[in-house]
Amino acid sequence: MGGDFGPRNIVQASVACLSAKPSLHLTLVGQPSLLEELIAGYPAVDRARLTVFPASEAITMDERPSQALRGKPDSSMRVALQLLHDDRVQAVVSAGNTGALMALSRHVLKTLPGIDRPAMVAAIPTQRGYCQLLDLGANVDCTAEHLFQFAVMGSVAAEALGVMRPRVALLNVGTEDIKGNQQVKLAAGLLQQARGLNYIGFIEGDGLYRGEADVVVCDGFVGNILLKSSEGLATMIAARVEALFRHNLASRLVGALALPLLSRLRADLAPARHNGASFLGLQGIVVKSHGSAGVQGLQSAIQRALIEIRENLPERLHGRLEDLLL
Amino acid sequence: MGGDFGPRNIVQASVACLSAKPSLHLTLVGQPSLLEELIAGYPAVDRARLTVFPASEAITMDERPSQALRGKPDSSMRVALQLLHDDRVQAVVSAGNTGALMALSRHVLKTLPGIDRPAMVAAIPTQRGYCQLLDLGANVDCTAEHLFQFAVMGSVAAEALGVMRPRVALLNVGTEDIKGNQQVKLAAGLLQQARGLNYIGFIEGDGLYRGEADVVVCDGFVGNILLKSSEGLATMIAARVEALFRHNLASRLVGALALPLLSRLRADLAPARHNGASFLGLQGIVVKSHGSAGVQGLQSAIQRALIEIRENLPERLHGRLEDLLL
Repeated sequence: MGGDFGPRNIVQASVACLSAKPSLHLTLVGQPSLLEELIAGYPAVDRARLTVFPASEAITMDERPSQALRGKPDSSMRVALQLLHDDRVQAVVSAGNTGALMALSRHVLKTLPGIDRPAMVAAIPTQRGYCQLLDLGANVDCTAEHLFQFAVMGSVAAEALGVMRPRVALLNVGTEDIKGNQQVKLAAGLLQQARGLNYIGFIEGDGLYRGEADVVVCDGFVGNILLKSSEGLATMIAARVEALFRHNLASRLVGALALPLLSRLRADLAPARHNGASFLGLQGIVVKSHGSAGVQGLQSAIQRALIEIRENLPERLHGRLEDLLL
Repeated sequence: MGGDFGPRNIVQASVACLSAKPSLHLTLVGQPSLLEELIAGYPAVDRARLTVFPASEAITMDERPSQALRGKPDSSMRVALQLLHDDRVQAVVSAGNTGALMALSRHVLKTLPGIDRPAMVAAIPTQRGYCQLLDLGANVDCTAEHLFQFAVMGSVAAEALGVMRPRVALLNVGTEDIKGNQQVKLAAGLLQQARGLNYIGFIEGDGLYRGEADVVVCDGFVGNILLKSSEGLATMIAARVEALFRHNLASRLVGALALPLLSRLRADLAPARHNGASFLGLQGIVVKSHGSAGVQGLQSAIQRALIEIRENLPERLHGRLEDLLL
């Protein structure tokens, strides 16, 4: 029921994923009459693999996490998480209220042993591919121990996505030892001593985009601002490029030829809008799609959930955390 | 003597500024023989307005601020700041080591009454013009009071640059009151009560680039990471655009036409590389040019210093701070 565009996009993305993946089964959780009406628009869909599960309430995009926890026992978000908890589904994907999804996930699924707080991670495009950036906003205040846990989780997630010996870095204002705030310096000490982790040191904001690390760790305040400012800048650049090509007749001619190429690029660059963000550290797989994600963004989020199921990510995380933390 | 390219670019930029501004006088501080040799390459320059002042030492780009303070009494940076302190020049522009410049500036010039720590500010391009972003890295840990002082200083700086009733915002992970860390929430309380300040509330990373505020305030950890990641992203996008246009013959033809337009845009977008960053809150005008600034970047930094001299920025700041803080 979530997202800035409601269930319409979600149904469309579901139908597309079902036809692309013959082994996929999807359960849509929400108001049955509305969902059935939307599904009816796709008569060719294989209903044996598309179930509707009822939930009478929905959490709005501006609701507080505390309200979501206490006020709505039958929200689509909570019901979906309960299905995951009860092993009736293998992962939950939501485009709804991020804070509420995190609070409900922690409440219904619980965190893995050794993890104080789940983190939100997404793949950010870089000059050399992608890096996993975390935390993206679930935790605004973090201790060194939290940053350490994020590093371990990010490393395991990158491995699951196919990176060998992922290079793990701490985001900082400089690369020298003396740089940074107290939490970052202490976290560096913890990471230097961690066995089995390819910790490469501090990284700066420009190093992230140069692709110097596969996993970049920061607190949720910094990560959220980095992610949103990057989206804002990419949007601004795209708008300026278009304006430039519309400026005069000669550039308009060039633009007519160049813009299709540039719009391809634009899609590549919108980080979390395009890819799902995962919640790491929970006893279950939860992927958050951007609230304003289009159909393609939702498909990417479902795709990310499928990879995490295939790789059994929570189990892998659990094993690694036992090695490193306990 | 500073910057990634040493004094060669600085001499070239100085010569260009002198010929553009007939009332400008410049003093180059550093090793006289080296500077004179470089100046000799420009026989047409008006030497009545271009002085060389000797300094036997230079601070390297990787030197610690504490070393710069204690170890080199005759560094070009320190000598230049002493000339400013003694009213023999009206502003200092440097492309050298940022941390050392800040430490020496505080030591030689002192802060204005009511200011605990100077902040570094630069103009960031947005969809609607520019916003003044501060702090950019001088202060990695900030209290609410520091953020409040930065807001006041940023507002006065924006006014000096021609903005009427600058819209001042606090950078945060959401725009609702409950969002953010403790410092940001407390700073919001202080700003809401400040008379004569056009405080508009919280702003997110994407709002910054949409141009929703004229002054955006954050701690130096966040500001530095935002600035550097933005530079990294802009560079990456430019590289991808070029790669896209080189990909095949058809796009290469389009690219040959489009790339000159795009390189114009690229110059507009590199924020601090292009514009000087000012130190605010000192008893004197100090402008920091990016270490890797080209000649044009250095000219922009000198230009920013000239505006601050014309507007008598430290004096204006002092007056406003007395009204608001004392």
